[in-house]
Amino acid sequence: MKRIKLTVAYDGTDFHGWQIQPGVRTVEGELNTALSELTKEEITVIGASRTDAGVHANGNVAVFDTESTIPPERFMQALNTYLPQDVKVVSSCEVAGDFHPRKCDCVKTYEYRIHNSQIPDPLRVRYTWDYQRPLDEKRMREAAQYLVGTHDFAGYASVHTQAETTVRTVYSIEVQRDGEEISVLVKGSGFLYNMVRIIAGTLTEVGCGNHEPEWVKLALDACDRTLSGPTAPPQGLTLKEIKYAD
Amino acid sequence: MKRIKLTVAYDGTDFHGWQIQPGVRTVEGELNTALSELTKEEITVIGASRTDAGVHANGNVAVFDTESTIPPERFMQALNTYLPQDVKVVSSCEVAGDFHPRKCDCVKTYEYRIHNSQIPDPLRVRYTWDYQRPLDEKRMREAAQYLVGTHDFAGYASVHTQAETTVRTVYSIEVQRDGEEISVLVKGSGFLYNMVRIIAGTLTEVGCGNHEPEWVKLALDACDRTLSGPTAPPQGLTLKEIKYAD
Repeated sequence: MKRIKLTVAYDGTDFHGWQIQPGVRTVEGELNTALSELTKEEITVIGASRTDAGVHANGNVAVFDTESTIPPERFMQALNTYLPQDVKVVSSCEVAGDFHPRKCDCVKTYEYRIHNSQIPDPLRVRYTWDYQRPLDEKRMREAAQYLVGTHDFAGYASVHTQAETTVRTVYSIEVQRDGEEISVLVKGSGFLYNMVRIIAGTLTEVGCGNHEPEWVKLALDACDRTLSGPTAPPQGLTLKEIKYAD
Repeated sequence: MKRIKLTVAYDGTDFHGWQIQPGVRTVEGELNTALSELTKEEITVIGASRTDAGVHANGNVAVFDTESTIPPERFMQALNTYLPQDVKVVSSCEVAGDFHPRKCDCVKTYEYRIHNSQIPDPLRVRYTWDYQRPLDEKRMREAAQYLVGTHDFAGYASVHTQAETTVRTVYSIEVQRDGEEISVLVKGSGFLYNMVRIIAGTLTEVGCGNHEPEWVKLALDACDRTLSGPTAPPQGLTLKEIKYAD
């Protein structure tokens, strides 16, 4: 028996998120089906991050156990012939039998992309939040620094969050503008439900001038979700990378 | 009566191309429907470039005549409320009543994008040609220079081309690599049917080492389509801009 780790990329537009649910198309469901067809075993993957409906990924991670004699590195190519074009495996390797993608220390990198223009762009609409009011990325960058560090992020989590603790560590938040597009790159050890989307939504409230940069501390200090900004829409979010300490 | 010029952007994935055809979804059809709903007149646009099924655009051009009192610059916003998210008007203005988008001198810029990697990318698959064999962009750049200038491009046109003359002027072809992606940017006064896609397909034959850069001259000199490369797939192509001499 071998444990295989897959790095998985997908366009989330046509998926009801990662997690398998009856009757709808999910990333996990597509992976299980492709793996079971390839190996002729009944395989259920364990995913690292259960991304929401509409959220994309360049590097989500899943593991599974198999008796297959396919060399671990070959699973990438072999699986991709079974997978549809909106979800693909970008690398595969063997890992220790006790490696669990949600229980091992890691750094997750998410990017939130905002298309900040009064002119719509049909070629970006699947991958960005279309935000028409002018945003000042310098104000957003200043506000973001208050969120970096180890904090109780209860004020930046959906009320539906089921985590045991709401303390998380954000290593960095980079805000960059390239023409009409603003990128918010967030690195952390882990995130609460909707946390990156709420961070993005809160930073735009500062960027458009509704609030001063210091305002983002209020929700943090009070652990009060009603004091942070809106949850930015899912299609702007991409899980870029999960890096394990191994 | 006013003549209004629209600059139009679209994701071509879900369209059967620009030109209106019964029973299928086309860009021209969506524009006509939106304009007729907005103005309550029966409007038929004249397009600059009848892009193929699957081809995208940042800046195709269309004109129409109207009695509407909507200010010309306001057509952009007004129309966009009627248009679906994969086709949008990015600017609108009034032009002379005799301006015809296919008969006036212009410079058209097309970009052909190639994703050159053995690892698939679901987030780029709608907008690139997935080409796994390694491509040498320096060889492609060298080959491209033989095509710049005024030539008979019969060897670089689909046999279905209906043009009166197959002589065209290509002002420049820039080949750039950014990581796994190669961009072929082609500027010209006009193009024959499938010409940019055949140029892209021919340059990859040089880039992958099947032919020397000089080989691209053969099809040009002989005006023989069987001597040029394959027609690259539509989803890699985007009509970036049409610039009129006015």
